Amino acid sequence: MSDFHQAPHKLLVIPGPIEFSDPVLAANATPGTAHTSPAFIPVFGETLSLLRDVLLSTKESGSQPLLIAGSGTLGWDAVAANLIEQGEEAVVLNTGYFSDSFADLEAYGAKVIQVKAEIGNIPTDEAIISALASKPKLLTITHVDTSTGVLSPADHIASLVKKHSPSTLIALDAVCSVASEEIRFDDWGLDVVLSATQKGLGVPPGLSVVLASKRAVETVEKRKTPIPAYYVSWKKWIPIMQNYESGKPSYFATPPVQLVYALHTSLKSITSAPMADRFKAHKAASAYVKDSLAELGLEFVPKSRDIAANGMTAVRFPKGLKAPDVLPKLAERNIVVAAGLHKAIVSEYFRIGHMGITAVDRQRGDLEKVVKSIKEVLGKA
Amino acid sequence: MSDFHQAPHKLLVIPGPIEFSDPVLAANATPGTAHTSPAFIPVFGETLSLLRDVLLSTKESGSQPLLIAGSGTLGWDAVAANLIEQGEEAVVLNTGYFSDSFADLEAYGAKVIQVKAEIGNIPTDEAIISALASKPKLLTITHVDTSTGVLSPADHIASLVKKHSPSTLIALDAVCSVASEEIRFDDWGLDVVLSATQKGLGVPPGLSVVLASKRAVETVEKRKTPIPAYYVSWKKWIPIMQNYESGKPSYFATPPVQLVYALHTSLKSITSAPMADRFKAHKAASAYVKDSLAELGLEFVPKSRDIAANGMTAVRFPKGLKAPDVLPKLAERNIVVAAGLHKAIVSEYFRIGHMGITAVDRQRGDLEKVVKSIKEVLGKA
Repeated sequence: MSDFHQAPHKLLVIPGPIEFSDPVLAANATPGTAHTSPAFIPVFGETLSLLRDVLLSTKESGSQPLLIAGSGTLGWDAVAANLIEQGEEAVVLNTGYFSDSFADLEAYGAKVIQVKAEIGNIPTDEAIISALASKPKLLTITHVDTSTGVLSPADHIASLVKKHSPSTLIALDAVCSVASEEIRFDDWGLDVVLSATQKGLGVPPGLSVVLASKRAVETVEKRKTPIPAYYVSWKKWIPIMQNYESGKPSYFATPPVQLVYALHTSLKSITSAPMADRFKAHKAASAYVKDSLAELGLEFVPKSRDIAANGMTAVRFPKGLKAPDVLPKLAERNIVVAAGLHKAIVSEYFRIGHMGITAVDRQRGDLEKVVKSIKEVLGKA
Repeated sequence: MSDFHQAPHKLLVIPGPIEFSDPVLAANATPGTAHTSPAFIPVFGETLSLLRDVLLSTKESGSQPLLIAGSGTLGWDAVAANLIEQGEEAVVLNTGYFSDSFADLEAYGAKVIQVKAEIGNIPTDEAIISALASKPKLLTITHVDTSTGVLSPADHIASLVKKHSPSTLIALDAVCSVASEEIRFDDWGLDVVLSATQKGLGVPPGLSVVLASKRAVETVEKRKTPIPAYYVSWKKWIPIMQNYESGKPSYFATPPVQLVYALHTSLKSITSAPMADRFKAHKAASAYVKDSLAELGLEFVPKSRDIAANGMTAVRFPKGLKAPDVLPKLAERNIVVAAGLHKAIVSEYFRIGHMGITAVDRQRGDLEKVVKSIKEVLGKA
């Protein structure tokens, strides 16, 4: 399998799924393997442990990784069903489309309090502090809102929570930030990071990725009412994950074996260099894209560079142009970018992803191709 | 990619995951592709439609396929969360380990009434009819209980429901039976078939596979209370699936693109011959395995051949032998079978899977190898 080469294809530079490496795709084509196989168990176990490394957490902290077949969205169900009991308050810091979805978690009985920011901006400290006055059970942050490219200052927000309502659990929606933006799980005192595989982690979609703090695990153990869900019940999954991590087979539902092999391959590659280097590479890639687009006179959805994601860029079309004028012409040049997603401005902007090998392995020349093609399409080559 | 050959590996003959074909694994290594790509949309759409073909259902019947990232277990959450409202009754026909899990669906508010069979047997008609007296909202059948290899007569049970409580919805847990046992969705009047990809469908694990009847869809539309879940909400997913099937992109959560390509490849292959031929091939494979083991004097977990699955065999060890005497010696011969799973008899039996290419492509010689190796290990070669 070491000579596996993926088929020729258009360059995928949307904010996820992203380009996958040949070794990752080869791992996704692992032959039929039992989920209880002596070959697979240590791979699953090490994958869980590597996930902590990527999030700068340690086993000693008591943090618990959970890898469950599902989309990133499934992590929201897990947070709501496991950590919140009927009628408890959850503050949702709303920076766009994906925070809107979080608010839907009232399905599981949460009382949701929204703190909305303007499109392209983050909530003010005052608004956050005010929302913490009622000592909510949980506060959720969308680290990078994939619809707007806004990067929330998760460390700063976490410090506000620690100061003004230390009992509040902090859940970070890091679907579009794990392995592309700095996340220091232990240092920042996060309680849940929830993510998916198809973005910064560079693995095909289909795995829900979660890291829960010791405090989050204890919150589940101390619940007064049963967990109002089955498949996402951490009471079911935590013993399974602990067994795999200590090398023992265990069964609740069949894990997506091939995706776990693929994630293992990617995590081994990601952790072969310090995480700080990886974040620096994503910042450099982002600066290259944003500087190049700014030179063309283009403007960005995030209000300022310091709240713009490093793994993606949400950029406004020049006056008079819309998606049908630009995206098909990029596709003709074998470049796939993403249209707008946030309803209020959907036709005004497009999105470019620069995560994973596209950002880290600059010898591929992906971003140079993207910038060159955009220049051509806008008639500025 | 047409020259893709999977790595050499042990023959996987457990009741799922199973052996996968080279084209299916190659499809699972499809390069990064957007879930909204013009290349992917028709593939996803056709995959949904082919699923109806496999279950002998037609679009005209109003049946609705749903393919969602997750394990087979996720389908149970979907059934409980979408079809049952707080306090409504669900009759669970319990034939083993996997029916026990169904009973856990009280998490979503169902009142569960269990109709238990002895290990290796199916519930009596009298017990089923008696449980239908209260006109429950739902009745669940485990088609093949993977823990015991018992095949429930789903068509007969469905006919009992139609006669004694026609308003009761019928959900078939077909995780271990889709594409290996006959299922006639429309003819039998089923309301939900729930399954997964890694068994008879011959695709790596990670996709929850559901077909819902028009009546089931209407039940969701007519709910009096909100669906107490988010990720498995069919109100969220049905419009997405309908859009994909009519060739339009749509977003709720990122579908597992590579797994959908793999499933599409497998379904195209499965539906290239009449389904009746495929069921016949599985019956022949099953008869070969069971006859060969019976010749060795071995006994089976199911009480009789007519309630034994055609896609797997649960066989008792000869007196005095246990799993550690047999399974490692089969593994040395590159044959992977599964240990017992049902707690009450866990050490007394093992399980052999014969689904998918192992059953249909007999030129591979998989089952001859399995029988030969079992003979050697039992000293009866």
